[in-house]
Formats: sequence, structure tokens, C-alpha cells
Amino acid sequence: MRVSELVERSGLPLATIKYYLREGVLMPGEATSVTQSRYDERHLRRLALIKALAGAGLPIHKIRVIVRLTENPGDDLFETLGRAVAALPPYPDPDVPAPRENPRAQWALEHLGQVYDPRFPAVGQLDRALEAVEAVGIPMTVERLDNYGRHVQAIAEFDLAHMPVGSTEAAVEYAVLGTAVYEPVLAAMRRLAHQDIASRTLTAEPSQQLREDTP
Amino acid sequence: MRVSELVERSGLPLATIKYYLREGVLMPGEATSVTQSRYDERHLRRLALIKALAGAGLPIHKIRVIVRLTENPGDDLFETLGRAVAALPPYPDPDVPAPRENPRAQWALEHLGQVYDPRFPAVGQLDRALEAVEAVGIPMTVERLDNYGRHVQAIAEFDLAHMPVGSTEAAVEYAVLGTAVYEPVLAAMRRLAHQDIASRTLTAEPSQQLREDTP
Repeated sequence: MRVSELVERSGLPLATIKYYLREGVLMPGEATSVTQSRYDERHLRRLALIKALAGAGLPIHKIRVIVRLTENPGDDLFETLGRAVAALPPYPDPDVPAPRENPRAQWALEHLGQVYDPRFPAVGQLDRALEAVEAVGIPMTVERLDNYGRHVQAIAEFDLAHMPVGSTEAAVEYAVLGTAVYEPVLAAMRRLAHQDIASRTLTAEPSQQLREDTP
Repeated sequence: MRVSELVERSGLPLATIKYYLREGVLMPGEATSVTQSRYDERHLRRLALIKALAGAGLPIHKIRVIVRLTENPGDDLFETLGRAVAALPPYPDPDVPAPRENPRAQWALEHLGQVYDPRFPAVGQLDRALEAVEAVGIPMTVERLDNYGRHVQAIAEFDLAHMPVGSTEAAVEYAVLGTAVYEPVLAAMRRLAHQDIASRTLTAEPSQQLREDTP
């Protein structure tokens, strides 16, 4: 297809597509003349990936890390996936030196029976998040950690069980997109579950309705 | 205490505290002279709330909504909590008109047996999030929704069961802070659970270790 069709089918402006070509995150098309190139489904698929990552707040140099990993995944799928997910936000403040210890995350992971490895960026994220809940007076308790840990583990097992295993490229895409785009889904679901439970436990409506229904 | 002690104990600069006083989110101290006021533990507690909300990305006018609700909660706790949580991010793009229908959220909530009420902001959040996962090719399936729904429900039930019931102010604080500051905790826990499961299922290390341990 010509670039005009790529614009139409991807929903991205021509200037944006040219930018992605210049930045090397979209592979070049096949040159058909000095000024024209031909593109195919691989370009559309790549643009969908870039668009999703940009929408999740990734700057271009982090998008490039993920695109390179889908192109050259390396032998170790576990390490490739770890590096890809590590390119996702949130990013630590570059002006604040990373703490060498993550006492809260270490405590939580050891309690849950998980490996504590400070090289995983999510370890630092967890430690800072646990520091924040402590600061606002709702610290993580053992009871809360047991509850959250059990249910988050079940969600994560579902996620891994549904990862495509046919190609490393598909696995990397699933891991980064499934992580980044499903976090807002889960957050919204939790807020709505709160509201659903609160509507049954905090209001008098259900019993009022019962009374109205009773003849 | 004098304002200097408020600065020291809250960890906030004097200019920030004066700004919160001007904006009406921090209540005035008791005037002891033309230029001096006395503050107490209520001011410290309020500053901790404001600091936590500002840290979670709330602009001053949204912080004001929540502060007003803790001061004048109204009779209906369910409605008060709903209005307080509705003041939390993410905020819809003001340039994009809100869709009047949320077909994906409606489908998901009806499948889960929850009330669909488009006046809850989290309904729009869920609908946009479900649109995003569809766009990247990992749409919400019935199987995934059943799994996520069951476990998110259990987490939300724990949250509600631990809400302080002594005062509406404490309940509002718990609801907004527990929602805003625990979302990053749960997101980091899910990423680490992925890594933990993947380390056991995708690498050969565990069996290698077994072999080394075997005499």
C-alpha cells in the first residue's frame, strides 16, 4: 500500500508516520521510486504497537527499546520480557538517586514467597508505593498483603496462561501491552466494585425497595 | 503551635502552607495577634491529606472538592464517598465531549452483575480502558472478565470491610486515599507476580538448581 493508505488505515497523520520513520521505530517501506515507497501489514501492525505505547505515556526512546526487543529478542524469553516491561512507565525521577534498598518491597515479597531482586524496576515502584500508603496513614498490613497478594497472583496467572507462545514478537507485544493497557482496566474495575459493594452496604435503598415490593 | 512548627512537622515549605490557606483548603489558625496565628493537630492532619492528594496528581480545585466533603459530608455516606472518589484522576480530556454511551463498560458490568450507572466517572474510565485494550488486539474476553471480576471483587470487599466507620471525615479520607494511593501498589504487585510466575515457567533455572542440589 502507499503511504496515503497507511495514513488512512492507521489513523495517524502523515507527519507522525514520517517522524516514526525518522526515529527508526517504523521500518522503512520498499522503495518503488525515488519519492515513493510501498508498505504492508507489518507496517500497520508496528504502527498500532507504537500508537498504543505512545498512548500509554512512553517517550520515543522507550518505544525504541521495545521495538528493538521485538526485532531482536535474544535467546532468553524471560529476560527479553523483563527488559520490555522495564521500559514501561512509571519512570523514577532522574533528579532523585535510586535508593539502594527497598525495605518495604523486600518485606512484602518475602512475605508472599516471591523472589526479591532489586534489579526489577517494579521492585522500586512497589517500595515507593508502599511508602506513600504509609505516609497517608493506611499502611500495608499483613492481612491486606495476604488478601491482595492472593488475588493479584490469580490475575497474573491468568495473564501468563494466555500469553501467545508462537513467536517471541507476539509474546513481547502481549507482555508490554497487557501490562500497560490493562492496569487502567483493573483500576476502574476496582473503583466500580467499591461503588457496587458500598451501594449494597451503605445505603438504605435495598430494604426500602423490599418494603415497596411487599404488598 | 506556631506556623514555623507547622512547617517543620508537615515537611511543607511556608510558601506552600500560605498558598493552601489562601486557597481555602487549609482552615485558618486561631489569631493570637495581628501577625500571628496558632495551629493544632487538625491543621497537621489536613496538610497530610492535601499533600497526599497533590502527590496523587490532584489540582487544587479537586483537592478543594474533597476537603469540603470532609467538612460538610451530607447525610448520605454512599453519595458523599461517590462524590469524593469522583474528584480523583484520571480526568477526561475537556476538549473531547463525553460519550453518552459506554457500551463496553455496560456489557462488562452487566456480565458481572453490577449496576450500570453512567453518572459514575469510573464507568467512562472503564469504557475508554476497554476500548484501548481492544485497539491493541488484547480485547476483554468473557473468560478474562470472569477471572478479573472475581478477584477484583474480593480485593474491593477487603477494602470496604476495613473502612473506618467512626466518622464520615475518616471514611472519606480512607476512600479517596485508599483508592488513589493503593492503585500503584496493586499495579506494581501485578508486575512482580508476572515476573515471579515467568521466572518459574519460562526459564530453565529451577530444574538446573535441582540438578545442582542433587548429590
